[in-house]
Amino acid sequence: MTVLVTGGAGFIGCHLCEVLVARGERVVVLDNLLLGRRAHLAALDGNAAFTFVEGDVNDAPTLDALFAEHRFDAVFHLAANSDIAVSHADPAVDFDATFRTSWSVLDAMRRHGTSRILFASTSAVYGEATGAIREDHGPLLPISHYGAAKLASEAFISSFVGNYGIRAWIARFPNVVGDRSTHGAIHDFARKLAATPDRLQVLGDGSQIKPYLHVDDLVDALLLAWETMDAPVNLFNVGGTTRCSVRRMAEIVVEEAGGTAEIAYAGGDRGWIGDVPSVDYDTTLIRSLGWSPRLDSEGAVRAAARWALHAAGVTA
Amino acid sequence: MTVLVTGGAGFIGCHLCEVLVARGERVVVLDNLLLGRRAHLAALDGNAAFTFVEGDVNDAPTLDALFAEHRFDAVFHLAANSDIAVSHADPAVDFDATFRTSWSVLDAMRRHGTSRILFASTSAVYGEATGAIREDHGPLLPISHYGAAKLASEAFISSFVGNYGIRAWIARFPNVVGDRSTHGAIHDFARKLAATPDRLQVLGDGSQIKPYLHVDDLVDALLLAWETMDAPVNLFNVGGTTRCSVRRMAEIVVEEAGGTAEIAYAGGDRGWIGDVPSVDYDTTLIRSLGWSPRLDSEGAVRAAARWALHAAGVTA
Repeated sequence: MTVLVTGGAGFIGCHLCEVLVARGERVVVLDNLLLGRRAHLAALDGNAAFTFVEGDVNDAPTLDALFAEHRFDAVFHLAANSDIAVSHADPAVDFDATFRTSWSVLDAMRRHGTSRILFASTSAVYGEATGAIREDHGPLLPISHYGAAKLASEAFISSFVGNYGIRAWIARFPNVVGDRSTHGAIHDFARKLAATPDRLQVLGDGSQIKPYLHVDDLVDALLLAWETMDAPVNLFNVGGTTRCSVRRMAEIVVEEAGGTAEIAYAGGDRGWIGDVPSVDYDTTLIRSLGWSPRLDSEGAVRAAARWALHAAGVTA
Repeated sequence: MTVLVTGGAGFIGCHLCEVLVARGERVVVLDNLLLGRRAHLAALDGNAAFTFVEGDVNDAPTLDALFAEHRFDAVFHLAANSDIAVSHADPAVDFDATFRTSWSVLDAMRRHGTSRILFASTSAVYGEATGAIREDHGPLLPISHYGAAKLASEAFISSFVGNYGIRAWIARFPNVVGDRSTHGAIHDFARKLAATPDRLQVLGDGSQIKPYLHVDDLVDALLLAWETMDAPVNLFNVGGTTRCSVRRMAEIVVEEAGGTAEIAYAGGDRGWIGDVPSVDYDTTLIRSLGWSPRLDSEGAVRAAARWALHAAGVTA
């Protein structure tokens, strides 16, 4: 098939594109390179099955030209503002980059008759829900604009399915880590250690505890769901069953950096407004299809820490 | 308090404004009169507590000027595309009029420090859910763009609450009927009888069965919730516990018209794409606050039919 991957130069997108091309699919990436990096897709350069287009998903003429030229069988829609904390001061960031991109993609699919979409949603749609959150949790009261924009995207995906015979796969996942990550706590810790090798300042009190998923495990889950789920709207959680605290994450990063830095906590129960201090997650559905992550949360964090420390110049 | 009522010239808005002014509140209506009608607010003309402004909620300069001038204590956000069926052919109608208006209002509230919003949501957020639907129903898979746009609005209301100390009241209600209604099946039936008094053509097979709420009962529920619920986000269903089929509605309209027309059904289980054939509804929460509708579904339909037949010139 020929797939449009929006945000394909982003952290998750570049991994997904490599796997798709390896499986024999034709991949067209549309990315405005605001958060994505062209270099992330270096491994695919020169591959006849791969095309990179620098452009904005919200630019309708760009999108129309792409859909007309490539007659996509599917869209894997990953383009979004991936820096959740930034939009407290400017909610228009998530309105445009996280929500309106979804609307733009859906309306292009309608105009051009593209019938399948895979959407990268988020555990942030569940807001401050507690307990092991299942896909049918309600009500959905996101506290970040990022979560709101993803939920708003899901809403219109659902109505486009209802109106135009489109089918959808919606993956809700929490923090994903791994190589080529461009933001997040591990990335921040590595940069801080590059600047001040003997001290690591951590936002919050370190007690935030979440599941972390390695990007390779996420890509496996996305493609397994794509191939095996067949409802009009296929909504599923993906995440590790184990969790890792920010405290443990900081320790792992310091261990991987050589173990000499002192860790200092700023205090408070969360790092920034819109963050959710504790997340647990029910992944029974995707596991029932045969998926399980190869790395648990601490393992994923450690693998990501090694890469981030190397990228930041802390380790050789 | 001083309240901005968006869509205040619409069917529900005009009733709400009359009650608010009667209770001593200052009311400013912003309505673009695309669906609302200036004449609906005739009873308030000349009242010093009432101001009408013709303008579009999505026009930021208009909104900024209004917020700066009136320093609203609250926004009752009712502006929307109320004709659900139209947006199958053009989803941008609900994107702009039903969703983006909500975004525009929320961002103006953030910029001007307005801290309370009451939002007219819909049972359409529940999609084709079956059984007695509670507020915590999930997953939410709307099949109409109208339902999607309302759910997307709820999502951002929730994140604005999470970010800026805003508080919200979100009412999810199904079909509302009564005087000054400008669309819907009763309205259509009355217009058809005005054109062909001896025959009433009905879309679908008449088996669609839904709760109908009289607009006066809805306004009571909205203001009771506003005064008694005090969570950051107060989400509640409103609706009658009884239901009325389209067949019974057609019979009531014909009875009120004089009882001579023959009723003919077009067949199929729904009237148009995006319609939901059967809706049931759990209103335990709002009833626990002391609310109950004065009219049941058939009573509400009959009261609305009398007004619509008179407005259409069928009855004197």
